Amino acid sequence: MRIIDPTEDELRRSLSLKWGTVDPDVIPAWVAEMDFPTAPAVTQALADAVARGELGYPSFDYERIGEAYAGFARRHFDQRVDPSQVLPVVDVTAGVRFALDVLSDPAPVVLPTPAYHPQFGVVPVTGREVWELPVPPDAERGMFDLDRLDHLFSRGARTLLLTQPHNPLGHVHTRAELEAIRDVVVRHGARVISDEIHAPLVLPGARHVPYLSLDGTADHAVAVVAASKAFNTAGLRCGQVVTDDPATRDRLLEAPAVRNSSWSNLGEIAAIAAYTDGDAWLAALVERLDRQRTLLGELLAEHLPEARMRPLEATYLPWLDLRAYGADDPADVALTKGRVRLEPGHRYQHDLTGHLRLNIATSPERLAEIVRRIAAALDG
Amino acid sequence: MRIIDPTEDELRRSLSLKWGTVDPDVIPAWVAEMDFPTAPAVTQALADAVARGELGYPSFDYERIGEAYAGFARRHFDQRVDPSQVLPVVDVTAGVRFALDVLSDPAPVVLPTPAYHPQFGVVPVTGREVWELPVPPDAERGMFDLDRLDHLFSRGARTLLLTQPHNPLGHVHTRAELEAIRDVVVRHGARVISDEIHAPLVLPGARHVPYLSLDGTADHAVAVVAASKAFNTAGLRCGQVVTDDPATRDRLLEAPAVRNSSWSNLGEIAAIAAYTDGDAWLAALVERLDRQRTLLGELLAEHLPEARMRPLEATYLPWLDLRAYGADDPADVALTKGRVRLEPGHRYQHDLTGHLRLNIATSPERLAEIVRRIAAALDG
Repeated sequence: MRIIDPTEDELRRSLSLKWGTVDPDVIPAWVAEMDFPTAPAVTQALADAVARGELGYPSFDYERIGEAYAGFARRHFDQRVDPSQVLPVVDVTAGVRFALDVLSDPAPVVLPTPAYHPQFGVVPVTGREVWELPVPPDAERGMFDLDRLDHLFSRGARTLLLTQPHNPLGHVHTRAELEAIRDVVVRHGARVISDEIHAPLVLPGARHVPYLSLDGTADHAVAVVAASKAFNTAGLRCGQVVTDDPATRDRLLEAPAVRNSSWSNLGEIAAIAAYTDGDAWLAALVERLDRQRTLLGELLAEHLPEARMRPLEATYLPWLDLRAYGADDPADVALTKGRVRLEPGHRYQHDLTGHLRLNIATSPERLAEIVRRIAAALDG
Repeated sequence: MRIIDPTEDELRRSLSLKWGTVDPDVIPAWVAEMDFPTAPAVTQALADAVARGELGYPSFDYERIGEAYAGFARRHFDQRVDPSQVLPVVDVTAGVRFALDVLSDPAPVVLPTPAYHPQFGVVPVTGREVWELPVPPDAERGMFDLDRLDHLFSRGARTLLLTQPHNPLGHVHTRAELEAIRDVVVRHGARVISDEIHAPLVLPGARHVPYLSLDGTADHAVAVVAASKAFNTAGLRCGQVVTDDPATRDRLLEAPAVRNSSWSNLGEIAAIAAYTDGDAWLAALVERLDRQRTLLGELLAEHLPEARMRPLEATYLPWLDLRAYGADDPADVALTKGRVRLEPGHRYQHDLTGHLRLNIATSPERLAEIVRRIAAALDG
């Protein structure tokens, strides 16, 4: 199975946000989309659906998506998922909103930071406060402090919004870390929403442990997952909420339909195809991302030797500490002087300086050019 | 341009909700989907987008969808829409939720009934009460009482959720009716959310007057529209909120992105194609629906002479008063004894008996069979 590298012209036509909104001389390495077309199985399923005219409401029969995800979770994470416990949602952020609204007490939500920035927005929209739990830039591991979590629950927080594998830190939580998190949560009778959208993108050397695969989590946790990140179909709009407890599932199903009825039929078809027939392509993708990770290490050593990078255990979105180069906002410098668009670190953690998030899901040549441009911009 | 009538087998494969969830011996005439495949221009745009790999995030550049809708509104409704005042949303119900959350005072919402049933759910989800304003089944016109609207605003309601053309009454509001509504609204400084999803489906004899085309509405109203009903693409997920006032638009744009960021890229592409290149197909569709309306009149005269039908000025969803036949829930009788699935009237107006909503967007032969089955079931 081959991972295809389209031309720049093709990318400008296909990725309307990532490539379509930057100036022609800018290389986009910002939003979490890959420069690779999705798996042939997904394209074929969508083309067939369009040809057959499958453009109507989804069936609201969750069996096929449930079976498809359960098979994927068994093969990839060695996890037993009951197909009847998989519920489509519009996307991961909509799924988090839905779970917060329906399941969580009306009380503050702990958000470890740096955090995927829509998470800052989704919590207040549900009428809850965000209580940030920062991982300091000099922390040895990309993992938040459990004593501090315990303290926030003591003070009244009732939900932890966990992201694992972590975006933007690239950290894959170990079983021991997850068990320790669970113990704190259980002690306080709190809830967990576990955003696991990057789980299929764990790279060689690490292994994804679904939070719900731990004993004693079914009654307090849901996972929010999607095929859209690994299969590069962010515009199709179908994520899934996974439960492991009929009572939790029933609460979600009994919520007013308007809270969760707007996923796309084509998104659901694409997700089923990805989960069912996408393994070979996904393996090729992970191999390519692993090579890009190695290449990035070499490029940083050569061009940005003072950069510090969190170990990229998952995702294609490395988190770079460039404080040694002196710029408060290196993404801004890289855009202005280097014509590379990156994600500034302060979008993910307030008041953070000197950091950025890079996107390596592109061709090796373009990645090399991106790093050279960042280095030249920061040098100048 | 030809309107295609697929076979039953094709319909079971393409319309997963309407056809896919009923028993093989049941004719589905319930949910608002048509048995006709969408316009060739929409299919082609989707096929091209899939082939090009346009599966990523939408661009969040609203120019193309704005231009497309503005052109459609000018040609079909003689309405001047500023393209920059068209904002994509996931679907019409999501658009109503978004407008209520962002624009309306936290106070009761007037909902004329019978009403499209998700509207009962969307209001409480925003933390507001629904105050129903029933059009009694024996009212001469399918239009609510303005004194009663005035009274509800006096008592503290702050928003009117208007549906025009009306689903399920099939009523197209006249300019005089809309001006009278506007005058009551303005007197109370209230707001209007005008669901105009059925506007492209006004049938010969009536004419759609956009609420925002009236003087003195821009500062208190938004319209929620979509190509999905007229072009039969409910699963694609892209509606639009139309404003006519930069301040209103700015409030919507300044809302947290998670309130409105999940429409589908393919839905947006389909909507642009429908609005831009769909006129000939839409004209053929309206002609077909007009003929189905005539046929229905003949069939009712022959088989259900005691049925009373609201004049079907728009939509393909006639509202039938079958009280003369004695069944409290004629839709249930029709399903059980006649094997036709219809929408029971009490889903649209609480405690209403003897009514149902029919769906005539099918082949003439199937419509004839539907009416014969209903008649036989009610007779039995």
